[in-house]
Amino acid sequence: MDIISLHNYTRDIIQQAASKIRASFQQTMQIETKADVNDLVTNIDKETEQFIIEKIRQFDSSHRIFGEEGMSAETFENLDGIVWIVDPIDGTMNFIRQQRNFTISIGIYENGIGKLGYIYDVVRDELYYAIEGQGAYVNDERLSPLENLPLDEAIIGINASWVVENKRINYKKTGQLVRKVRGTRSYGSATIEAMLVATGRLDAYMSMRLSPWDIAASAIIAKEVGACFTTLKGQPINLLTQDTFIIANKSIQQEILDDYIELYD
Amino acid sequence: MDIISLHNYTRDIIQQAASKIRASFQQTMQIETKADVNDLVTNIDKETEQFIIEKIRQFDSSHRIFGEEGMSAETFENLDGIVWIVDPIDGTMNFIRQQRNFTISIGIYENGIGKLGYIYDVVRDELYYAIEGQGAYVNDERLSPLENLPLDEAIIGINASWVVENKRINYKKTGQLVRKVRGTRSYGSATIEAMLVATGRLDAYMSMRLSPWDIAASAIIAKEVGACFTTLKGQPINLLTQDTFIIANKSIQQEILDDYIELYD
Repeated sequence: MDIISLHNYTRDIIQQAASKIRASFQQTMQIETKADVNDLVTNIDKETEQFIIEKIRQFDSSHRIFGEEGMSAETFENLDGIVWIVDPIDGTMNFIRQQRNFTISIGIYENGIGKLGYIYDVVRDELYYAIEGQGAYVNDERLSPLENLPLDEAIIGINASWVVENKRINYKKTGQLVRKVRGTRSYGSATIEAMLVATGRLDAYMSMRLSPWDIAASAIIAKEVGACFTTLKGQPINLLTQDTFIIANKSIQQEILDDYIELYD
Repeated sequence: MDIISLHNYTRDIIQQAASKIRASFQQTMQIETKADVNDLVTNIDKETEQFIIEKIRQFDSSHRIFGEEGMSAETFENLDGIVWIVDPIDGTMNFIRQQRNFTISIGIYENGIGKLGYIYDVVRDELYYAIEGQGAYVNDERLSPLENLPLDEAIIGINASWVVENKRINYKKTGQLVRKVRGTRSYGSATIEAMLVATGRLDAYMSMRLSPWDIAASAIIAKEVGACFTTLKGQPINLLTQDTFIIANKSIQQEILDDYIELYD
């Protein structure tokens, strides 16, 4: 594939989709008072995904499209060929309640290999992207490789839900992790938190349950800055299923997995 | 006091202080690699506070100044007269590690009554402010009164530290709160989280331990949008001491305090 043409085209798609989302803010405000908030947002999610799908089909109708809202009507049992993995709005609750802290996320894979990754924080106007082997950028600035640090100086992204008693993970061990590190944060968007790790603003982010479109772009960008991204069992991520996820500075990832994570099967 | 002159002057101080902080970003990057990160930030904190103090003294040398870095050398046993309560950088760890998600915060009190409150999110360029009885604003936009909502639809700001076992609070009850609400967030800056509540982007924010300069400005702004702000015992805040703190939509505050907060003395 012609990487540069694809790169330029994808950036254009994202900017056009973002304009549509920004235009919806006023509409959102008006409709929130008289209709169901979740329905409305579903409409904007769907409209945005439909727009992106049409643009991809115009570019090359042989490309496959795997999106959160399932508008492409394709079922996915493999990643053969060129596959776009699309989340039109990651951080839907933030979008509804905050009108900030959400992104448009697109990962482009070729036979399962990540080629191009894009995460656009619409309100901050920050486009994070990477081309395989060419480094990662935010807008026009190249991201630096991450520097090592000890776990007790780390700031980690973890939702409080994974620190209270739950069926998926030993909460006492995640609680020990919270006490061990310097600080914790939670922003409500897996892509924003992953990009905070990619830029060294957080040192790890984990979740018990993410879908392929939550992590497809992040994985491509993470690789270019030397961040680790695996399941919480330390296995490679599988983009055909929902699973656990951690992205982390490589100097602390194994210690987190070994000493603080105990999953219940 | 001449409220409008004071308001205009304070806005100018904040913009000038913000320029100094922005200019320090490059310096921060350079020095972080060769010196202790905490020392550096203390210097920027102190320089910013010293700048603000000098500006206040130029305006009226009879005004008292209560700042996080203690540069005014005054000890505080009462709030008599006109008192400026200043935090030059709220969210210090974010400032060091993220170069975002921190604020300049100033509250101006007259004989203990909040008159003018300012919280400036430097990187987002959002100035939240209120004049007693005149409403609250972000930049030039007036904030709306908060709308009621049920607790199970709320998004609350709470750090994971208060959900793991600790000496200050019954963590099992805060854990029940985490499970009850729709979502939780944690941003690492008490003033940013308070302003997310003031704008309806969060519905509550609480902390076990905040100082007067963390909450002095927020309290004035919160009052103008009808948000509750008290200690976690439901008592009025005391600006002479460190204490617990909650700012919340008034439709959910009492339920949180009654059913989910149990402090250990």
